[in-house]
Amino acid sequence: MVSKVKRLLIGRPMKSNELDHEKLSKVKALAVLSSDALSSVAYGTEQILIVLVAAGFTAIWYSLPIALAVLGLLAILILSYRQTIFAYPQGGGAYIVAKSNLGVPTGLLAGGSLLVDYILTVAVSASAGTDAITSAFPSLHNHSVLIAVTVILLLTIINLRGVTESASFIAIPVYLFVASIFVLIIAGVFKYATGGAHANVPEIGAAVSNVSLFLLLKAFSSGCSALTGVEAVSNAIPNFKAPAEKNAAKTLMMMGLILGIMFTGITLLAYWYGITPDEKATVVSQIAESTFGRGGLYFFIQGITAVILFLAANTAYSAFPLLAFMFAKDKYLPHAFMVRGDRLGFSNGIIFLGVLSALLVTAFHGNTESLIPLYAVGVFIPFTLSQLGMMVHWYKTKPKAWQNKFAVNTVGMLTTLTITLIFIITKFSSVWMAFIFLPVVMFVFHRIHHHYLNTADQLRICPATDKPCIKGSTVVVPVAGVTRAVLHSISYAKSLTDNVVAVYVGFDEEEINKMEQKWEEWNPGVRLIVLRSRYRSILRPLVKFIDTVEWKTASTDHITVLIPQFITKHWWQAVLHNQTSLFIRSYLMNQKDIVVATVPYHLHK
Amino acid sequence: MVSKVKRLLIGRPMKSNELDHEKLSKVKALAVLSSDALSSVAYGTEQILIVLVAAGFTAIWYSLPIALAVLGLLAILILSYRQTIFAYPQGGGAYIVAKSNLGVPTGLLAGGSLLVDYILTVAVSASAGTDAITSAFPSLHNHSVLIAVTVILLLTIINLRGVTESASFIAIPVYLFVASIFVLIIAGVFKYATGGAHANVPEIGAAVSNVSLFLLLKAFSSGCSALTGVEAVSNAIPNFKAPAEKNAAKTLMMMGLILGIMFTGITLLAYWYGITPDEKATVVSQIAESTFGRGGLYFFIQGITAVILFLAANTAYSAFPLLAFMFAKDKYLPHAFMVRGDRLGFSNGIIFLGVLSALLVTAFHGNTESLIPLYAVGVFIPFTLSQLGMMVHWYKTKPKAWQNKFAVNTVGMLTTLTITLIFIITKFSSVWMAFIFLPVVMFVFHRIHHHYLNTADQLRICPATDKPCIKGSTVVVPVAGVTRAVLHSISYAKSLTDNVVAVYVGFDEEEINKMEQKWEEWNPGVRLIVLRSRYRSILRPLVKFIDTVEWKTASTDHITVLIPQFITKHWWQAVLHNQTSLFIRSYLMNQKDIVVATVPYHLHK
Repeated sequence: MVSKVKRLLIGRPMKSNELDHEKLSKVKALAVLSSDALSSVAYGTEQILIVLVAAGFTAIWYSLPIALAVLGLLAILILSYRQTIFAYPQGGGAYIVAKSNLGVPTGLLAGGSLLVDYILTVAVSASAGTDAITSAFPSLHNHSVLIAVTVILLLTIINLRGVTESASFIAIPVYLFVASIFVLIIAGVFKYATGGAHANVPEIGAAVSNVSLFLLLKAFSSGCSALTGVEAVSNAIPNFKAPAEKNAAKTLMMMGLILGIMFTGITLLAYWYGITPDEKATVVSQIAESTFGRGGLYFFIQGITAVILFLAANTAYSAFPLLAFMFAKDKYLPHAFMVRGDRLGFSNGIIFLGVLSALLVTAFHGNTESLIPLYAVGVFIPFTLSQLGMMVHWYKTKPKAWQNKFAVNTVGMLTTLTITLIFIITKFSSVWMAFIFLPVVMFVFHRIHHHYLNTADQLRICPATDKPCIKGSTVVVPVAGVTRAVLHSISYAKSLTDNVVAVYVGFDEEEINKMEQKWEEWNPGVRLIVLRSRYRSILRPLVKFIDTVEWKTASTDHITVLIPQFITKHWWQAVLHNQTSLFIRSYLMNQKDIVVATVPYHLHK
Repeated sequence: MVSKVKRLLIGRPMKSNELDHEKLSKVKALAVLSSDALSSVAYGTEQILIVLVAAGFTAIWYSLPIALAVLGLLAILILSYRQTIFAYPQGGGAYIVAKSNLGVPTGLLAGGSLLVDYILTVAVSASAGTDAITSAFPSLHNHSVLIAVTVILLLTIINLRGVTESASFIAIPVYLFVASIFVLIIAGVFKYATGGAHANVPEIGAAVSNVSLFLLLKAFSSGCSALTGVEAVSNAIPNFKAPAEKNAAKTLMMMGLILGIMFTGITLLAYWYGITPDEKATVVSQIAESTFGRGGLYFFIQGITAVILFLAANTAYSAFPLLAFMFAKDKYLPHAFMVRGDRLGFSNGIIFLGVLSALLVTAFHGNTESLIPLYAVGVFIPFTLSQLGMMVHWYKTKPKAWQNKFAVNTVGMLTTLTITLIFIITKFSSVWMAFIFLPVVMFVFHRIHHHYLNTADQLRICPATDKPCIKGSTVVVPVAGVTRAVLHSISYAKSLTDNVVAVYVGFDEEEINKMEQKWEEWNPGVRLIVLRSRYRSILRPLVKFIDTVEWKTASTDHITVLIPQFITKHWWQAVLHNQTSLFIRSYLMNQKDIVVATVPYHLHK
């Protein structure tokens, strides 16, 4: 049953050598890896305007220079990451770059920061997309948590089906979104150029008394949230078709270009149309309404925006499992993240991401907006560390014209560092949590690593001297009566060794006598030892007896406890039989150095 | 940790021979077994008045003849059950009496009906007691489910501690309740006799136009809910100190007497004071207020009434586990209900009752009033069957003066049968559920019984001919590398037999070559067989290999699969290691007739 449902949802299992077919073409890669970055235009301009409008309507002209700064930052990031792609063709996420150039702890900080961030991405994007839906259909408002969790569930299933299918599914809405925003910008500019929709807007350079540097920095850092997701391409190089690094670099440039054009267009139109943020309608919605009126095109843009926000969450689904795999390979996360599932994706990473983000959405009742600054900081810390790592990389390897490359990354590092500091200063009340959970996450990585190293130490053998040594065998068979299951176990025990004892734990003299008589009558050729239990516990006297046997013979003999166990025909029938054998087994396994064997006895009716 | 908490809550484990000290004296037995019956006076009169008042204030005089009828019924029940106690000194619950005289299915119907009823008792009483508390402190109203569940939890813990301690704990409030109701009745009668509190009440015999027979029957059956719990004493005879049956009979008579006096007193005072049911104040509360005013005595009576309602639930805690034990002994319920816990109570029955009633309270959001008629029917069905069983008993055994005894039980049977029918007719909308779940419960009993008989059949051996037969041994050791854990397992396997194969499941050629080289270098004297898995599954190729071995050798050899398993020092470290061995073990155990042994390898750091 379970396996049928699984087959239906996930698809047939795939062979390991089908892995190559799962690689991404540029067109699909752009869709899968850039929906996070591209979806930012849905709220980037708005974030800037919200801060500025606090200083009055006149202040909105500042959105143009701030947007220019954000665009500059985008260019710097794209160029920096382009360098990283060629320097680290095996996947140059912040983790790898920081680890190999700045040392392991810095790498862990960068990677851990990103891992946490991907979980936040899914939670925030799913909630934001749900908000878009519930704004259109207010009656759904009470079910927003359910909608967001359902979306997360769907994304998890799609990703468990495999990378390629996920890409095919996702490409269509992503390109529809890009196309519709382009149409909106062209139509909007045309309308403005032909004299329509001129609003009374503050001139560029108009003096505004209460605009402080702090306010401008805050607006700038808010606008920078439009840049989260830019790193996705450089993390995912191994997912590209060959030649992977060239394809990745082209995809990255393309993404930067599209993002830049859309962001510029939206910000310009917003200024020209004199649009201010409104609780009830987003900036993009206002532009679309001014351009097209509330017609079909308007509703189409609103709908596709909601979809793209859901798909932004999907970026994390391709990035998180890959990063978790790298951590697991380096022994900083459980090995389970290295296992490929039936469809060759890292299923455990995908499921872990889905579960944690769904919990986050539930815990915040779908109001995850307060997590956005935290999420932005979680991106800019690894941005900075990655650039710093690249600087060290160029300085150490000194390839041709390394000074230019060094300069690009230096500018990138200083810019992202500045933005990180601006975030921490202007939004400390939202980001202080990072200072608690990042150390915790680092500590967990450290403990896991420590455990794996310790285990390897204890398991290592010297092939030359450590050879199997053969000892005798004593088999202890706990019996509860004279039944076919006991016959089965005794037969098995006698096949292994002559050294077999049956042990019976009795609670009162009457049953003990009865058992002794039965045993004598049966006479299976094995001694029966009777233990008396005054506390109705089978385990305690049994363990005491095994202790004695161990003390007497363990140096010469292996001790095996052989437990007869019923296997009922239907699983639910198991509640009808006592599960003492399970208790005995788990106790002995955990406490003692003896082998526990369960001899199944299958009931056929 | 867990065992310390358990020790603290439940107390130290007790030896089996301490069981005798757990027997109940009459004084304690009265408290433990009659709180259900006695607490009925808190609502019995009120139930009658609620029905009557629907026909107008004048109709309330009918409460007197109806109360008389209820008292008559009480006397009949007490006399009938007194006969049962002496006829069945080993505990003469409806189950035993009906089973041994009317056949097994009737016994199961009576007993099953009671088992379900005890769960309802706990749920209904806990909710009613909570209502009393929240009436006094309205601010607690939103937490009523939490309060009721906490009460159930406390009762469960008290009962897990053992019968005697539970009795000592319970005796005080029960006797305080009885004493305070007696004081109330005496003071009330005195006040009325000395001319106080005369209300303008309808005369006895006053004509009321719209009183129908249906209404009177409904009022009567409502009043009969005051009699639930009367059977508790006869079920629990084995819990009494010797001479058990005499002590039980005396306790039963005493309980009948106290209940009769209290019920009469409350009903009379209610009539004299002209009290009608009120949503905000119970009948007892109104009587107490009229008699004492809203002073200390009034609040004391209210408080102790709430406590007695909680303790009514406790009756079920002594009756349910005992009845479940009998069912389990007769193989109609899982054996688990026969196990005595650390404190000699039937822990599983106690816990089962607690969990199910807590679920019921939660499912009904604490509004379990609608379950009361269902609960009453669940009592009167076994009442009737038990009386019928006693009739057959006397007729078959024909002791001295059996005709008298037969007559008593015949009257009892006819009365309870009539009441059951009245219940079904007047309150069908509340009791129809019984016609669904009783057949379901009966079916479950039947299936469980069938399974146990089948199992016994399959397990039975003929001591003369079924002797252990000795075969050879083949041991298969799945290995994942060359480690100390593998060394350990191979040593063990070679100690058992020379017929050992190591099996390695590889996913790609590179790792397979590496493994083969390592094995050759180590050379432990055991052949390594390499299986290739194209689907990254270890289980599938392994099972296929074992099938082959089985096919080749199973008739001559026992096959053992020996799984090396890490035991980490701390339980949480287990997530860091793959649990493949668990999967392999549970699959092989359930699907195959081969022995699976786990060789523990304890990590020490």
